[in-house]
Amino acid sequence: MNHDFESAPEVATAGQLVLMVSADNKRFIIRLTPGAEFHTHKGRMFHDDIIGQPLGRVVVTHRGDRFVALQATLFDLIMSVQRGGTIMYPKDIAYALLKLGAGPGARVIEAGTGSGGLTTALATYVRPTGRVYSYEVRDDMQVRARKNLERIGLDEWVEFRVRDIVDGFEETHVDAVFLDVREPEDYLAQAWAALRWGGTFGSLVPTTNQVSEVLAGMQAAGFMDIEVAEIILRLYKTVPARLRPMDRLTPHTGYLLFGRKAMPLAAVGAAADGEEEPGDGGDEGEAR
Amino acid sequence: MNHDFESAPEVATAGQLVLMVSADNKRFIIRLTPGAEFHTHKGRMFHDDIIGQPLGRVVVTHRGDRFVALQATLFDLIMSVQRGGTIMYPKDIAYALLKLGAGPGARVIEAGTGSGGLTTALATYVRPTGRVYSYEVRDDMQVRARKNLERIGLDEWVEFRVRDIVDGFEETHVDAVFLDVREPEDYLAQAWAALRWGGTFGSLVPTTNQVSEVLAGMQAAGFMDIEVAEIILRLYKTVPARLRPMDRLTPHTGYLLFGRKAMPLAAVGAAADGEEEPGDGGDEGEAR
Amino acid sequence: MNHDFESAPEVATAGQLVLMVSADNKRFIIRLTPGAEFHTHKGRMFHDDIIGQPLGRVVVTHRGDRFVALQATLFDLIMSVQRGGTIMYPKDIAYALLKLGAGPGARVIEAGTGSGGLTTALATYVRPTGRVYSYEVRDDMQVRARKNLERIGLDEWVEFRVRDIVDGFEETHVDAVFLDVREPEDYLAQAWAALRWGGTFGSLVPTTNQVSEVLAGMQAAGFMDIEVAEIILRLYKTVPARLRPMDRLTPHTGYLLFGRKAMPLAAVGAAADGEEEPGDGGDEGEAR
Amino acid sequence: MNHDFESAPEVATAGQLVLMVSADNKRFIIRLTPGAEFHTHKGRMFHDDIIGQPLGRVVVTHRGDRFVALQATLFDLIMSVQRGGTIMYPKDIAYALLKLGAGPGARVIEAGTGSGGLTTALATYVRPTGRVYSYEVRDDMQVRARKNLERIGLDEWVEFRVRDIVDGFEETHVDAVFLDVREPEDYLAQAWAALRWGGTFGSLVPTTNQVSEVLAGMQAAGFMDIEVAEIILRLYKTVPARLRPMDRLTPHTGYLLFGRKAMPLAAVGAAADGEEEPGDGGDEGEAR
Repeated sequence: MNHDFESAPEVATAGQLVLMVSADNKRFIIRLTPGAEFHTHKGRMFHDDIIGQPLGRVVVTHRGDRFVALQATLFDLIMSVQRGGTIMYPKDIAYALLKLGAGPGARVIEAGTGSGGLTTALATYVRPTGRVYSYEVRDDMQVRARKNLERIGLDEWVEFRVRDIVDGFEETHVDAVFLDVREPEDYLAQAWAALRWGGTFGSLVPTTNQVSEVLAGMQAAGFMDIEVAEIILRLYKTVPARLRPMDRLTPHTGYLLFGRKAMPLAAVGAAADGEEEPGDGGDEGEAR
Repeated sequence: MNHDFESAPEVATAGQLVLMVSADNKRFIIRLTPGAEFHTHKGRMFHDDIIGQPLGRVVVTHRGDRFVALQATLFDLIMSVQRGGTIMYPKDIAYALLKLGAGPGARVIEAGTGSGGLTTALATYVRPTGRVYSYEVRDDMQVRARKNLERIGLDEWVEFRVRDIVDGFEETHVDAVFLDVREPEDYLAQAWAALRWGGTFGSLVPTTNQVSEVLAGMQAAGFMDIEVAEIILRLYKTVPARLRPMDRLTPHTGYLLFGRKAMPLAAVGAAADGEEEPGDGGDEGEAR
Repeated sequence: MNHDFESAPEVATAGQLVLMVSADNKRFIIRLTPGAEFHTHKGRMFHDDIIGQPLGRVVVTHRGDRFVALQATLFDLIMSVQRGGTIMYPKDIAYALLKLGAGPGARVIEAGTGSGGLTTALATYVRPTGRVYSYEVRDDMQVRARKNLERIGLDEWVEFRVRDIVDGFEETHVDAVFLDVREPEDYLAQAWAALRWGGTFGSLVPTTNQVSEVLAGMQAAGFMDIEVAEIILRLYKTVPARLRPMDRLTPHTGYLLFGRKAMPLAAVGAAADGEEEPGDGGDEGEAR
Repeated sequence: MNHDFESAPEVATAGQLVLMVSADNKRFIIRLTPGAEFHTHKGRMFHDDIIGQPLGRVVVTHRGDRFVALQATLFDLIMSVQRGGTIMYPKDIAYALLKLGAGPGARVIEAGTGSGGLTTALATYVRPTGRVYSYEVRDDMQVRARKNLERIGLDEWVEFRVRDIVDGFEETHVDAVFLDVREPEDYLAQAWAALRWGGTFGSLVPTTNQVSEVLAGMQAAGFMDIEVAEIILRLYKTVPARLRPMDRLTPHTGYLLFGRKAMPLAAVGAAADGEEEPGDGGDEGEAR
């Protein structure tokens, strides 16, 4: 899913990112480097045993444990950068990408950087001509995310900025702004100022109280085409003869809000009861 | 969200795709063309009234009705191509994109073409160097989808093929295959044959019986890292002081299955009870 | 499910409540009366054709349409009394009954009466020695509910009161109070005053804003063992070979709140972050 | 919620069942007995300190730890009997009670007894003139459940039977049968034979495959008015200013099936696509 694919060789090549999966399902992202070694709890192996071979092959460590090398998907990369830090979930990142319209050539602002999960997704899809501007108030936090994006080769599409966004964003006319910060309602004016006309805004908040606050702020700021959504992911046990949802469900992650910078359309304001807005009716509304 | 962004001008330009939203929330995608007129139930307006102006502005029809022009997001394009036909929902398309790893440069097969919703998303993200191979057994159906993708300028990244996939796919070594057809379990061997080693497979089915069948078929075919997921989208009324889920909920769309073409890792088979597989535990599992 | 069962004869008896189901699944509750006729859109039939016969038999109207007579469950009665009025859903009523502890001999207050759905459930289960005190500010509304309960023979366990509960309740030392009114947060002191020590309180509200308000009010009033719950009912199509959730999902009904009148247990206050409260952990918490 | 309430005294009386809740939210059900002591991890206290006092009072153990005594609800009793054993969840028990129509005077069969959770709910609501017939193939298991029901004083309404139900049930003309056993589809004929005409059937199964099997069996056996339902309980953190679903969600419990013993109504068979059946449409369908 990343530019390593652009050659799309049938065999793994030096410099390619691969996902290593152990028999007990531990997962690691490595960049294949001639002469390099890969060390894990299961022992070590040589990158040269993978380079030049088809992916999907089993590789055995010096201790005899088995790994398989797979192409890394965006999903895998998001997982790998987010180890340990505060995270944004793929189910939410995925839906946000479509709603924000973060595609090739887009210029997108995100705050905060967090552990870099959304940054990874945005950088992947704005390539090759777009740019992600990632703001974070905590320097140490961003250093970690920057390392992660360098490791997976996406840093060249990201400009990291350590800054308190209460002072606003450096960029203007951006296509999209996404706020994943403690009080998004405090930065709506800054987001509005940075957006191009017609551009998209998004935010993620954990509580219903914040949904109300951000929603009120968005309506006051003049955002139109507002949607409030919650994505619930239900995973099933992979046993064909005993199909059932997993016992341990995905935890609550948060509520997503989206809107667009535009001039008011009288009747759209009237639609604020939500029943006429796209999420609720019409074929668009149904097509979710 | 599309290549029109690559210039990212502050004003709307000839040739740009824009979303027109009426005061009663009807939505239309148009490509700005000098001299052209836009006709709707609300009357007509001139593209030249939009070209050269910032997006987000209100445009008034000769009948005095108001429209606002916005940049079209991937979400909007998916909605617009899917009018009327059988559709795949953005909530499902979004998650599938991440799981499949359909990014710049990727070569992806989909079957069937349907009304072109997934085709639109894949074509958007494999640009500029990737390719989507879209199979459909019904010629008429594909003609419609092809027109839709031409209209939004994504057809150059898609090769449409009218063919019964029981005879297999023309391509090999592709990065991903997605099956949204009546009996996916009948085409798993063909999908396996078309995939590169380490590549990703996905499918969407409406019933639990089919989940069991496709799941059994995937395990028999040798796919690893299998996940069965259901995405539930919950939309809320956009009234800050009376926040509540919408009365009309999103309908059931289907169950998603994903896997990868790889050689067997003994213990991964043992994980078939689903409790050890990525969806369920570990930080990856939790990060959804 | 009602006292008609106490004889539990194998044949339908005069005076028994039965559910009549038409071939096109229209449902009617009737009390079998010698000599009476039952008139519907499908034509008429004689009660005497049912009395003395086993239930479950098909009865044919003079127009030749088919009905089947079944024993009426509490579910059926709740449905029948709620035709047309504002309603409380069985999924919510059922959970509330268990949480409130509304069993034989209990004295329970509800406000408002609404169309009598919860009244029906409470009256059913407090029999034979308990009592339901049902408050409603709108006289006309209560007249309708009273008629419904008379029709199904449960009125003798209900005392209907037309009164604005801002003035408090007439009863004290009741075992449970349930508020399904516009602003429950305004009547928490009245509920507390009416409850016996150790008694249970419950409420239903449609919005998250109200959940926050009622929750804050309950904590201020001193209620302990507080739970906030949402019951989501998912119905499946009854086709064994194509099992899937129904397209039309159940609408959002509301959020349920429960608590008990007791003196404060220091640490339980500390548990206000919700993670230590019963709903969340411990074997009680898991046993939901 | 139980017959101890029938006097409904303002003070706790000898013989009454009470729920003891510790400051760290441990819960115990005890029957107040003059002269008795209550021992816990938090130290001991005397029943006589509770008898004659209002419930809701704080009681202090000899070690200085605090407990509060509350009236035990049906919910509490279900929790208490189910400690450790395989359980049926209150959310499912509650909905089943309404669908089965298990009210005063009803004669109900359940199999298996399990740890007695459903038995407790049924015994509570069939009182004073009804009866629960509880079948279990494992003697040891039932001994435990019987002890639990004796402890809470509900055993007199239950007849426990140790028997393999493949040989059928001893009772006939019962109002309801509920199967919570490994392969319910194997015992549908026995359930049909035990039910009175017009009576209700219910079952709980964990997997979708079993739903299909039991559903097919029910349709073959002639059950009408069939519903397949899943109850999802969503609990929220009890923090008014930060309202959000709990991180740890309720696990998947199972799917519920319901039907009635009746003669076939042609068109109801045709309704097997589920769209015309009660769960889906009509005011009944909506009233869930």
